[in-house]
Amino acid sequence: MKLKGKKVLYIVHDDFEDLEVWYPVLRLREEGAIVDIAGEEANKKYIGKYGVPIHSDCSFLDLKPENYDALLVPGGWAPDKLRRFKEVLDIVKYMDENKKPIGQICHAGWILISANILKGKKVTSTPGIKDDMVNAGAVWLDEPSVVDGHIVSSRRPPDLPQYMIDFIDVMQR
Amino acid sequence: MKLKGKKVLYIVHDDFEDLEVWYPVLRLREEGAIVDIAGEEANKKYIGKYGVPIHSDCSFLDLKPENYDALLVPGGWAPDKLRRFKEVLDIVKYMDENKKPIGQICHAGWILISANILKGKKVTSTPGIKDDMVNAGAVWLDEPSVVDGHIVSSRRPPDLPQYMIDFIDVMQR
Amino acid sequence: MKLKGKKVLYIVHDDFEDLEVWYPVLRLREEGAIVDIAGEEANKKYIGKYGVPIHSDCSFLDLKPENYDALLVPGGWAPDKLRRFKEVLDIVKYMDENKKPIGQICHAGWILISANILKGKKVTSTPGIKDDMVNAGAVWLDEPSVVDGHIVSSRRPPDLPQYMIDFIDVMQR
Amino acid sequence: MKLKGKKVLYIVHDDFEDLEVWYPVLRLREEGAIVDIAGEEANKKYIGKYGVPIHSDCSFLDLKPENYDALLVPGGWAPDKLRRFKEVLDIVKYMDENKKPIGQICHAGWILISANILKGKKVTSTPGIKDDMVNAGAVWLDEPSVVDGHIVSSRRPPDLPQYMIDFIDVMQR
Amino acid sequence: MKLKGKKVLYIVHDDFEDLEVWYPVLRLREEGAIVDIAGEEANKKYIGKYGVPIHSDCSFLDLKPENYDALLVPGGWAPDKLRRFKEVLDIVKYMDENKKPIGQICHAGWILISANILKGKKVTSTPGIKDDMVNAGAVWLDEPSVVDGHIVSSRRPPDLPQYMIDFIDVMQR
Amino acid sequence: MKLKGKKVLYIVHDDFEDLEVWYPVLRLREEGAIVDIAGEEANKKYIGKYGVPIHSDCSFLDLKPENYDALLVPGGWAPDKLRRFKEVLDIVKYMDENKKPIGQICHAGWILISANILKGKKVTSTPGIKDDMVNAGAVWLDEPSVVDGHIVSSRRPPDLPQYMIDFIDVMQR
Repeated sequence: MKLKGKKVLYIVHDDFEDLEVWYPVLRLREEGAIVDIAGEEANKKYIGKYGVPIHSDCSFLDLKPENYDALLVPGGWAPDKLRRFKEVLDIVKYMDENKKPIGQICHAGWILISANILKGKKVTSTPGIKDDMVNAGAVWLDEPSVVDGHIVSSRRPPDLPQYMIDFIDVMQR
Repeated sequence: MKLKGKKVLYIVHDDFEDLEVWYPVLRLREEGAIVDIAGEEANKKYIGKYGVPIHSDCSFLDLKPENYDALLVPGGWAPDKLRRFKEVLDIVKYMDENKKPIGQICHAGWILISANILKGKKVTSTPGIKDDMVNAGAVWLDEPSVVDGHIVSSRRPPDLPQYMIDFIDVMQR
Repeated sequence: MKLKGKKVLYIVHDDFEDLEVWYPVLRLREEGAIVDIAGEEANKKYIGKYGVPIHSDCSFLDLKPENYDALLVPGGWAPDKLRRFKEVLDIVKYMDENKKPIGQICHAGWILISANILKGKKVTSTPGIKDDMVNAGAVWLDEPSVVDGHIVSSRRPPDLPQYMIDFIDVMQR
Repeated sequence: MKLKGKKVLYIVHDDFEDLEVWYPVLRLREEGAIVDIAGEEANKKYIGKYGVPIHSDCSFLDLKPENYDALLVPGGWAPDKLRRFKEVLDIVKYMDENKKPIGQICHAGWILISANILKGKKVTSTPGIKDDMVNAGAVWLDEPSVVDGHIVSSRRPPDLPQYMIDFIDVMQR
Repeated sequence: MKLKGKKVLYIVHDDFEDLEVWYPVLRLREEGAIVDIAGEEANKKYIGKYGVPIHSDCSFLDLKPENYDALLVPGGWAPDKLRRFKEVLDIVKYMDENKKPIGQICHAGWILISANILKGKKVTSTPGIKDDMVNAGAVWLDEPSVVDGHIVSSRRPPDLPQYMIDFIDVMQR
Repeated sequence: MKLKGKKVLYIVHDDFEDLEVWYPVLRLREEGAIVDIAGEEANKKYIGKYGVPIHSDCSFLDLKPENYDALLVPGGWAPDKLRRFKEVLDIVKYMDENKKPIGQICHAGWILISANILKGKKVTSTPGIKDDMVNAGAVWLDEPSVVDGHIVSSRRPPDLPQYMIDFIDVMQR
């Protein structure tokens, strides 16, 4: 178990990309990590784009990012909601400033754009938002998974295996 | 009938914001305009985010923008698909270069971002994509409707009345 | 703005025909009218036949029709529910007796049938309920929009442009 | 088995009231009757208002009513479609002229209205269309099941038991 | 009315097979029986696999089986939930020990398996669970309806007519 | 990559438990395995219980189990369909006879029951089918994951991490 004792925060909202949340959550737990699900409300059921539910453990409106070793943000349409919360952007900025691993996949890049942390960063995403990422100063690469320091990026569900190989590796550094 | 003889093109794809397509389509027809619905395929039923259907008259893969006096692009999740089609971006660029009225509302701004026509333009959109619009060089205003030359922008369905007042006005110039 | 200062009442229930409610609501607001949405309950979300929501401003169980300059009733399956409320029929009768404009489209005719105000009136509707309208004493015409005094009728969503041209005209008399 | 050798025709279309079709179909088969399901198309799956499917045996566009001993028409929103088919109205008229049992429940009355066979007939229906039935010349009674000669009427699913007691009885005369 | 004065209990949960609950309920009421619907909660709406609702009269967590003359359990996916309630299994065992008619159809056999009352019993079910029934000691027959003492079994909705003929017959013994 | 060069077969049908298919598929691919999805038809989209789709690579009606190093069968309602296919049961028997790893989770046990390979085997499953598993000769344990020779069992989605730790381990033996 490579991540025994590590605490990871996954921020969600309705219409998250089902597998882009659940695969990392289960995968990191398989490595011994504790993964907390943070929604707008605590103890609430959020429904993925296809319909798979997830229950939030806490609310991102009142949590301390310093309690966590890494952060994950989802694709799907959830990031279009999440990027509008100052609290979410503050969490992202905190993790970025403190060089803590941030995993983002598919449309999740919108959140990092609005947190304004992509200047000069090598990333990937769903090709759909490539222009937004580049306009935000990022260097966009069309690869299953891209690691640039503490930021790990991926494109879509079929890339989840490589995404987790890299994210687990970055979490172990 | 202020728009008698005018031809307008509305580009759609699945998950368009239902009212953001249908209100302008019916409103411009009320003013005598001919409004063509262009989908990826001709004569196909496309379904709005809430479920209201619309049938395409033609395909945006093989139409001549020069046949049209104005262009409308929808909000909802459809623009996330539409911005990936070179043919759609070419139509937007053609209309822009020829100073023909372009109407965009809610998330439709993504298409104008990817067509790279927003540099220095005053626009609005759903606040959700404000950062993307600003990163693309636009000046973002939080108003029901914003007119900058031939580009008319709006935020969300409740703004549709003002959006159409301005769009009809710009089409009459 | 042709209807500045005018107040219009739109009575709804679940399964209203989405565009037959929303186009008139937005269109009349574009002309400066105040449009109140009355449901069985106030401040409740009602869902259209296809899924587009609308929020009620007030309840038709306890409102004063004299506060309104005109009335609209929707098509879809909502009229099958609305015709069963004495309060709805009383509002229709009040507006009829006071010659205030009443707009009805598609299946909405069921409500005017049950309010018993169609004797000798020229109307249209969805052809599906033509027999019911004729049996109720109406003269049924197969046209996009029919005006008979203060009663404006229409058949289906594609007729909405002409329906609103006539309804706005009748409201200005 | 009270109806051994009898042939019954049930005319359906999408959005039929699920139990108002299936209870009579199974009940009459329990009494030994052969029950044919006629849709607009033969061998097609039609879906009830709640979602229960039924497969059509034949098409009402090309069947001979003389091959049947009795007719049933459904409630739900299906009758709003069925009343628009001349072929359906002709079948109803044929059965009526030949005094063959006709069973109608809930909104099914719309079909008998459009077949113009209700003058002076004692019936019931969903209270929602009482006005339409009365306007069509019927005498409307608020009872679970009403028998007037060969026409058996009922109001809603909870009345199905009495409706079938009466319909089976009328079929045995 | 063959079952005047008889009281029957139908135990349900969400995802019951719609017609396998509603046909027997209406059929037995047609024969004069009182049929109570027992859910996990009283006065709650349960939704069938296809979507037809039913409202519970009482809760199977706190009812007296001795108040009932017969028991019915449904197919669909509901039995996968119901077999997990000790209270449900106790009701089945009580009815079995007291030789009171038990009707089970389609997947309902799972409940009788978990109540452990099938040793040496002749039954049928959906072929899908034949192996489970045989492993539970039953003798499985591929027939529309099978009667073995007070246990009446059936396979699927088209068998409902024969199922009810037999069940009513067994209830009259 | 612990499973480089290994080939795994995942048999699916509609209503599979979404995460119980997708987590193992992605997880084994992360370890370098090739995972083929076999449906009743090849190249067809199957939809999970919640709605997540998966596309089949081949059909289990005409594949050679000898080409595979391990087999996985899903929970959800899919196993209720899959256990009815002789071809599926033959694949399970082949893998069992040749001591090749078989992974089964939640309701998947129904398939192993119908393949009659559980006599004396230590397993787990959703508690809902414990009685069926025991009746089939298995020894049922209430643990996240149970390994008995080449058979690896698990209960439900939250157990997926331990299930994959054990399955990957068994595949490496």
